[in-house]
Amino acid sequence: MLKIAVDAMGGDFAPEVNIVGAYEVAAENEIEVILVGDENKIRKFIPEKGNLKGKISIIHTNDQILMDENVSSAIRRKNTSMRKAIELVREGKAQAVLSAGNSGAMMALSFLLLGKLPNVERPAIATVMPYLKGYFILLDAGANVDCKAEHLVQFAYMGDAYHKALFNSQSPRIALLSIGEEQTKGNEATKEAFKILKNSSLNFIGNIEGKDIFFGLADVVVCDGFVGNIVLKVGEGLAEALMKMLKREITELITGRIGYMMIKPAIKSFRKKVDYSEYGGALLLGIKGTSIICHGRSTTKAIRNAIKVAAEMARKEIYKTIQQSLQSREDINESKNSSNRLLCS
Amino acid sequence: MLKIAVDAMGGDFAPEVNIVGAYEVAAENEIEVILVGDENKIRKFIPEKGNLKGKISIIHTNDQILMDENVSSAIRRKNTSMRKAIELVREGKAQAVLSAGNSGAMMALSFLLLGKLPNVERPAIATVMPYLKGYFILLDAGANVDCKAEHLVQFAYMGDAYHKALFNSQSPRIALLSIGEEQTKGNEATKEAFKILKNSSLNFIGNIEGKDIFFGLADVVVCDGFVGNIVLKVGEGLAEALMKMLKREITELITGRIGYMMIKPAIKSFRKKVDYSEYGGALLLGIKGTSIICHGRSTTKAIRNAIKVAAEMARKEIYKTIQQSLQSREDINESKNSSNRLLCS
Repeated sequence: MLKIAVDAMGGDFAPEVNIVGAYEVAAENEIEVILVGDENKIRKFIPEKGNLKGKISIIHTNDQILMDENVSSAIRRKNTSMRKAIELVREGKAQAVLSAGNSGAMMALSFLLLGKLPNVERPAIATVMPYLKGYFILLDAGANVDCKAEHLVQFAYMGDAYHKALFNSQSPRIALLSIGEEQTKGNEATKEAFKILKNSSLNFIGNIEGKDIFFGLADVVVCDGFVGNIVLKVGEGLAEALMKMLKREITELITGRIGYMMIKPAIKSFRKKVDYSEYGGALLLGIKGTSIICHGRSTTKAIRNAIKVAAEMARKEIYKTIQQSLQSREDINESKNSSNRLLCS
Repeated sequence: MLKIAVDAMGGDFAPEVNIVGAYEVAAENEIEVILVGDENKIRKFIPEKGNLKGKISIIHTNDQILMDENVSSAIRRKNTSMRKAIELVREGKAQAVLSAGNSGAMMALSFLLLGKLPNVERPAIATVMPYLKGYFILLDAGANVDCKAEHLVQFAYMGDAYHKALFNSQSPRIALLSIGEEQTKGNEATKEAFKILKNSSLNFIGNIEGKDIFFGLADVVVCDGFVGNIVLKVGEGLAEALMKMLKREITELITGRIGYMMIKPAIKSFRKKVDYSEYGGALLLGIKGTSIICHGRSTTKAIRNAIKVAAEMARKEIYKTIQQSLQSREDINESKNSSNRLLCS
């Protein structure tokens, strides 16, 4: 049975949602959850029917990393719930780890404790996003600001392997997020990455503009973590704002109020499709192991889904697929040279 | 009477929409429009009732810049409609210029021919965007990729002056678009700009995250042109995709189809609020004159509104307000030093 280590103390609604989510998932799936955190606090939230012998266990830690804590000092402390949870994966006592806590710390600690894959300079956060008729992968969604071309190229390879593993796809369409479709449009990093990707073995379809990502023109959208995080959050905020604006317009009409009642099930179904908590967390790509970063505002449902996703990722050992993909890069030497040239210019 | 020079040949639907838009605006406003472009082509689209003596004139040019043409070679040609239209402003024969053509060329030529304001290193494109209860200004929306901290600071000052002039505001809230609210979150350029803006005379409220821009937490949102352009286009694409997804969900229900009929007026009114063509074009800030960049896909309505916006900007001589604001910067020497430090580090 797969074992998933959960940082019970991480997230805006921790530890409650983490514990309830863990119990719900363990009850219905062949998954064992190890809750890591302050045992006294955890015990308070164990559901009444929570007697899941052999499927839930608790590992006590007396420290935790706060949401907005400075990463560099937080990751040095030895007995935090997040660190302990990741160590379980390193020691082979769990097959995956997840946390809804401080995402910078989660990334740094996963990187530090599990190690990075060969040919990866920086791990990336990959998120699954909905479009009109399916899903696409956006990466990096916030792990790395100020990326060089070579980092974007690595993200492309990792995204390719992740898409294949997640959706059983053959040749996902990889695109660079930029400000125009032409090769000449973009910033220094994207223009240089374009040249490298054009000659790679990937199914690279060129640049994609922001307006096209929600219409499924690419399966994997590559960008630096600063841009990716902003895109992710603009999407989240705009969807919420648009629904509010629309509702206000609708309920200003008398026919609108009746009409609104009639379309409410559709709105509910729609919201479900664009709700991040349906997809669980974001996978950290480029490290030796399965580490999932959840939204700080994760609900019980989000944690439940994230644990399921973590189990699936661990079962498929996606990080090994990514490793193989990166090792097969033919352009690696050439690209490293050009990246060095950039650094020196 | 204010004279507005219009690049008749620029835009995906040129010259028709430009000419029809110009005639509509000239008929109803105290505005004179100078259409610049191929006279034979322009004459084909003059409306039947288009006899507006003294309110419309044509200046013939036999060359034009194409939408996706390489900017550096395009701006060298001497007889393009875009160049000629901008020259009219330089020569004092028009008070503002607008084009829906190649936006890179429009920016470069405006900069080259009209000159930049003192204390401005790079002009920026400022767009007016709707939020839940009003409008905010986003800049730079695509003029400059790869910005340094000092550029972002200049954008903040220009955005401040623009907001004051446009909305008669006293002390607009200025924010940096970043990946977290804390000062420590962001890329190198935003973190450095944060330090400078914190000590400036502006009403700087700190970083804003992507999810908050559509809820009116800031009046002016500052970012580099790569990020700004992506945000703009993600917004555009997502709004369209969400409406399509919602409509599909609604019309899958029987009650939904009836409900949809009842809410249709609300959807129409909503679309009007989020439709870029309502706000005309985006103003180019930081140059000595009034230059408006329109969406390549501008319709007649968009051109009509853009000409009205151009006239208003010219009447208010906003570029002079921006000049005053930039000259009053107390931190300018300090900030230039710190920007130099960054360059050398």
